[in-house]
Amino acid sequence: MSGADTVRAAVLGAGSWGTAYGKVLADAGCEVMIWARRPELAAALNEQRENSDYLPGVRLPDRLRATADHKEALSGADLVVLAVPSQTMRTNLEQWVDALGDDTTLVSLAKGVELGTHKRMTEVIVEVTGVPDSRVAVVSGPNLAKEIASEQPAATVVASIDPARAELLQRASTTWYLRPYTNHDVVGCELGGAVKNVIALACGMAEGMGFGDNTKASLITRGLAETARLGVALGAEPMTFAGLAGLGDLVATCTSPLSRNRTFGERLGRGETMEQAYAHSRQTAEGVKSCLSILELAAGVGVEMPITEQVVQVCHEGIAPSVAMKYLMRREPKPERRS
Amino acid sequence: MSGADTVRAAVLGAGSWGTAYGKVLADAGCEVMIWARRPELAAALNEQRENSDYLPGVRLPDRLRATADHKEALSGADLVVLAVPSQTMRTNLEQWVDALGDDTTLVSLAKGVELGTHKRMTEVIVEVTGVPDSRVAVVSGPNLAKEIASEQPAATVVASIDPARAELLQRASTTWYLRPYTNHDVVGCELGGAVKNVIALACGMAEGMGFGDNTKASLITRGLAETARLGVALGAEPMTFAGLAGLGDLVATCTSPLSRNRTFGERLGRGETMEQAYAHSRQTAEGVKSCLSILELAAGVGVEMPITEQVVQVCHEGIAPSVAMKYLMRREPKPERRS
Repeated sequence: MSGADTVRAAVLGAGSWGTAYGKVLADAGCEVMIWARRPELAAALNEQRENSDYLPGVRLPDRLRATADHKEALSGADLVVLAVPSQTMRTNLEQWVDALGDDTTLVSLAKGVELGTHKRMTEVIVEVTGVPDSRVAVVSGPNLAKEIASEQPAATVVASIDPARAELLQRASTTWYLRPYTNHDVVGCELGGAVKNVIALACGMAEGMGFGDNTKASLITRGLAETARLGVALGAEPMTFAGLAGLGDLVATCTSPLSRNRTFGERLGRGETMEQAYAHSRQTAEGVKSCLSILELAAGVGVEMPITEQVVQVCHEGIAPSVAMKYLMRREPKPERRS
Repeated sequence: MSGADTVRAAVLGAGSWGTAYGKVLADAGCEVMIWARRPELAAALNEQRENSDYLPGVRLPDRLRATADHKEALSGADLVVLAVPSQTMRTNLEQWVDALGDDTTLVSLAKGVELGTHKRMTEVIVEVTGVPDSRVAVVSGPNLAKEIASEQPAATVVASIDPARAELLQRASTTWYLRPYTNHDVVGCELGGAVKNVIALACGMAEGMGFGDNTKASLITRGLAETARLGVALGAEPMTFAGLAGLGDLVATCTSPLSRNRTFGERLGRGETMEQAYAHSRQTAEGVKSCLSILELAAGVGVEMPITEQVVQVCHEGIAPSVAMKYLMRREPKPERRS
C-alpha cells in the first residue's frame, strides 16, 4: 500500500502513549517504525503484533513495525515522534541527533519541564538538534493511551508555529476515532500538558483522602487557573487553556483511573510513602519530577502556584497530604480574579 | 452565641442544596431559619436534627431551625436564600414578596432559565420583587449538596454587582470546608450553572453508551465553549467560564455519580425511555427542561450550541443518544479556534 506520498513516521519510545500514537499514525495510513530500547520488546511487537508490557490486548496494525536500532527507525522518516519521558529527552536526543533527516518534522509527545534548566520539551529539542522552531510540533489533548488504543472517540490538538507542518501532522493522524485540531500556540499546549500531571497528583491525593467530586473539581479549576497564569507570563495565549490541550487534557487526566499521576497521588493520599507508591508504578509519574521544575519556572517569572507548591511539599518535603490540603483551604478569602 | 452582629439568614426551600447551604451558613456563624413547604418536614428537621428525605445521615447544626411558615422564616432576615427549582421560582416568589425586608440581600441558588420567558433566575427575582439588581446575588460552583453536607473541602463563587453584598455573603458562608470567592459577573455565573445541567445530560449519555474519559473530557471542553459563546453574547465575561462557576461546576456535575442530570442522561444512554428515566428520579433533572429555554435563548442571539441541540433532540424529539453522538463526532475538522 506504501507509495511515494505515504508519510513515513518514526516513533521513538514504545511506552503506552508512544505505541498508541504509533497505532493512530498507522491507522491513518502512515508507514510507522517504532523504536524500543529493549530488543526483546521490539521483537515481541513485530512477532506478536502486541505491546503486552504497556498495551496488552491491543492488536497493532500491520503498517506498524518495531526495531531496537534507532538509525533504522529514523532512516527516511518524514515525521519523528519523540515519545520518551521528559527527564530523559535530552540524553536520548543527543544519541539520535546525527541520524535525523534534514527536513523532518520533530513531534513531541513528552509532557514535562526539564529539571535544572526549566525548559519545555520543544526548547530542549531545538537546543539539542539545532533545528528551527518551525520544524517542531507537539500533540496534546484528552488522550488516555489505553482509550485511544481501544479506538474510543477523542479529540486532540496538534500545535506548531508552522501551519503547514501542523496540517501535515493533522492529516497524518486523523482516524475515525481521533480528531486532531490544529493550533499555533506551542507554549500553551506544552504547559497545559506539563502542569496537568502535577494537578492530577493533587486530585489523586484528594481522592485517596476520601474527598469527593467537589474537591476534585475545585482543584481542577484552580489548577487550570494557576497553569494559565504561568502560561500567560511565558507568552502563551490564555484561550489555549480553555481548550482540549488545557481543560480537556486536565479533566481526562484528573478523573480517569487510567492516569498514572492521579493513581500515584491516590496512593500518597491513602497514606503510602513515596517509596511504597513508587513500588507500584510501572511507568514514571511525570508530575513528581516536573512539579519541582514548574515551581522554579514560576518563581522565575513571579507567578504564584499554590497547588503546585503543595504537591512539591508532599512529594519532596515529606509533608502529609492532609496538611497540604488544609493549607490550600485556609488561604485568605479572595475575589475569583482581579478586576 | 447570637449577638447584634450575627447575620440572620432565611433559606426558602429544604431540598438537598437548600439544606446543605443552610448548614454552611449556620456553621459559619449565622442564625438560620429554613422554610420547608411541608410542616412535617420542618418538624422533622427541628426534632431529629436531620433532613432524612434529602440528606440522610447529616446532623444539622443547632443554629439551623426550620418552619413551614414563610413569614416566620423571613422575619428579620439579612439574607434570603432562594433554594427552589428554577421553574417554580416565579410562583414561589409571588407568595413571599410581601414578607421581604427592605434591605435584604436576595441570594439565588436556583440553576436554570425560565421556560417561556427565557429569563435567568436573578431576572425573575428582580421582576417579581422590584428590588434593584444590586440587592441580588447568586451562589454557584462545584457544590454537590451531599459532599458539602458531609464537610468535604470545596470552593464556590458568590456573585453580585454590589461588591459589599458579595463580601457580606462571602463572610456569611466561609467555613473550614467551603471557600467562597467573590465575583461581579452575575450573568456568567448564572449561565454556567444553567447550561452545565444540559452538558451533564450529554456526558451521562456518553457514559451510558460505554464511552470513556477522553470522550467525556472532550464533551466537557466543547460544552464549556458553547456555554461561553452564549454567555459572551449575553454580556458575561469570558473568564468567568474558566472559573469555579463555569468549569468547576461543570466538571463536578459531569463526573459525579451524585449528579441528577448526569444520572438521568446515563439512563437514556443505556437505552431507557424518558418515562423510565423519570420513574427513577426523586428530584428534578433541571437540564431536561432548561435545555429548551437555553436553546431558544441562544437562537435569539444567533449562537450555535451543538451539544445543547442534540440534548434537546434526545429529550424532546425522540432521537436515540447514539444518533445524537454520531452527529456530534461527524462535524467538519477545524482549527481549535479561529485566529
